[in-house]
Amino acid sequence: MTASAAATENSIALEQDAFVAAVSDQLGVFLSEKGALLASISADTLVLVDSIKTLVTGGKRMRALLCYWGWRGAGGAPDAAEVVMAGAALELFQGAALIHDDIIDRSDTRRGGPSVHRAFATLHAERRWALDEERFGHAAAILTGDLCLSFSEEMFASIGAEAGSRARAVFNLMRAEVMAGQYLDILEEVSGPSKPHNTAVSRASAIIRYKSAKYSSEHPLVLGGALAGGSAKLLAGYSEFALPLGEAFQLRDDVLGVFGDPAQTGKPAGDDLREGKRTVLVGLTIDAANDADRKFVDSHLGRQDLTAEQIGRLCAIMVDSQALAGTEAMISVLSATAFAALAELPLAADVSAALSALGHAAVSRAS
Amino acid sequence: MTASAAATENSIALEQDAFVAAVSDQLGVFLSEKGALLASISADTLVLVDSIKTLVTGGKRMRALLCYWGWRGAGGAPDAAEVVMAGAALELFQGAALIHDDIIDRSDTRRGGPSVHRAFATLHAERRWALDEERFGHAAAILTGDLCLSFSEEMFASIGAEAGSRARAVFNLMRAEVMAGQYLDILEEVSGPSKPHNTAVSRASAIIRYKSAKYSSEHPLVLGGALAGGSAKLLAGYSEFALPLGEAFQLRDDVLGVFGDPAQTGKPAGDDLREGKRTVLVGLTIDAANDADRKFVDSHLGRQDLTAEQIGRLCAIMVDSQALAGTEAMISVLSATAFAALAELPLAADVSAALSALGHAAVSRAS
Repeated sequence: MTASAAATENSIALEQDAFVAAVSDQLGVFLSEKGALLASISADTLVLVDSIKTLVTGGKRMRALLCYWGWRGAGGAPDAAEVVMAGAALELFQGAALIHDDIIDRSDTRRGGPSVHRAFATLHAERRWALDEERFGHAAAILTGDLCLSFSEEMFASIGAEAGSRARAVFNLMRAEVMAGQYLDILEEVSGPSKPHNTAVSRASAIIRYKSAKYSSEHPLVLGGALAGGSAKLLAGYSEFALPLGEAFQLRDDVLGVFGDPAQTGKPAGDDLREGKRTVLVGLTIDAANDADRKFVDSHLGRQDLTAEQIGRLCAIMVDSQALAGTEAMISVLSATAFAALAELPLAADVSAALSALGHAAVSRAS
Repeated sequence: MTASAAATENSIALEQDAFVAAVSDQLGVFLSEKGALLASISADTLVLVDSIKTLVTGGKRMRALLCYWGWRGAGGAPDAAEVVMAGAALELFQGAALIHDDIIDRSDTRRGGPSVHRAFATLHAERRWALDEERFGHAAAILTGDLCLSFSEEMFASIGAEAGSRARAVFNLMRAEVMAGQYLDILEEVSGPSKPHNTAVSRASAIIRYKSAKYSSEHPLVLGGALAGGSAKLLAGYSEFALPLGEAFQLRDDVLGVFGDPAQTGKPAGDDLREGKRTVLVGLTIDAANDADRKFVDSHLGRQDLTAEQIGRLCAIMVDSQALAGTEAMISVLSATAFAALAELPLAADVSAALSALGHAAVSRAS
């Protein structure tokens, strides 16, 4: 690395740290105010805000950072309040999505700790309350997610983006698309086995586009650009970079969900297989596997009672069918497409370097 | 009725009908646009918007109408677009709340038809999809509710109320309060039996204030007034009318939930008792009943397997303990307080008459 590249990297890191700290402060102040509001209703409801606080304290802030560099790339100032609020709104939206996702996927852990519904079920058990602890956990988590979704929107509305503005349109589109994508995801879990196996990959690709790539990558970057008044051409260029990047990111997530180290991912081994996620990795597997192996995959994916041996066989089929290698190849192609598009964008060197670093971290991470 | 009173009643009915039709049109156009968006993702996701459409087509539009007369009472014009959008946003919010409520309460019916999670479970069964139909139903309904909540906010944002405006503050407060109130509701179901029975009524009163009265009555009326630029004094007067009215409305709902005619309410007999709702009616019962009856109530409320005989005994205890009579007395007192406050409001005769009619319908209804 040259001295000038090192200096750029250092200044990017400082700028990112300042932004991330500002987003955390914004979330902290906002959630404290909401805690005071809920306390005025009943101290018993404070646990809702505390759950949200715990959840949004963690995380990599990837969406907020993409929004930030989208903003900076379109000429936004480094220390502007709007982009901090937008970043906080994205983090709250992600929090809401995770709370409800974990109910849907029956995930008991999140970022190494208990998921929200699990934490409420534990509270129920500890207090020896009446009726069913699981049901209470789910109900409380549905409400916590709803509250977090409202908070996200309230935070976004506080920016004051006009009703017909591009930024508002992106925010609206993001929410509708991710919910539609999540529905396609659960639909594929139940209807996938009865559909042709040679279209499984294209179905899985559509799911990750809407459930993940647009929501986690494209829309945050474009939102930042739109808030700063970026041109339609610039925002289209953002999409050309961020959409394939987001797809590669989700493919990496799917690989880690099966082959990742539980100590690093914070999720138990085989969790994605028990959830029955019909990912591109699974699609490639059932498309390429022999009949016996395909039948084994179809009849075991989504079973809560999978044994370590069954998980081992599922992993072996994914490797032997070249599905894992195929997924890694797709990650490479999508990454190359994304970074080629990034190189074409008319961005200042520091913005370009920051987006490049974020992108590389997203597709080659281990957790 | 005098000729002039009849003329007023007729003109109110015409004006209300025009507003309700405008809200329905607004919802129809909006949901058609959202249907087109979802269809562009995948035709499979259209069912999400269709579920919302079915749900928001029914209902009494009580919240939208309160918003409307709040707007008119503060000088808003009869045919303004803002209040139509606000009414549509409130109806969408109510739709989202109902979808998630029905999951939480395990209610299989809504307005005489299947609830959303039940409809998705039936779809799963009809298509003979894999894995569990109940789980799919819940997951799909969580996502549909989230989508509907986002739609509500998108509709409200399209009004263009400024970030720091009173109307936006009311909309934000409404959402946080109702979610906190719903949490207190499910918390009381599980923790109520272990708390002192002589405070059950005051706990149940706090729940209906936040879960229902503020959300269904006070906030819609104040929202309409705030959008039209009503004075702080007028809006405070609105609260003095609408808060006790909303409490009386919910007490009526609780009575109907136990003693109502299933043919008229559209809910099976005993549904509220199986759900284990710890209403004011229940609070009065366990406070006044003898030890044996109280024990029977505490050990049977919330059981999914209640027999007709057990439901009959629960109802008998509510009557014999004078809890039903006490609830009716509370409805009378709250109604009188509300209508006395209404009489003090500086409103035109038609607005006052419209709010009076809405109020009387809310507290003396049979469905």
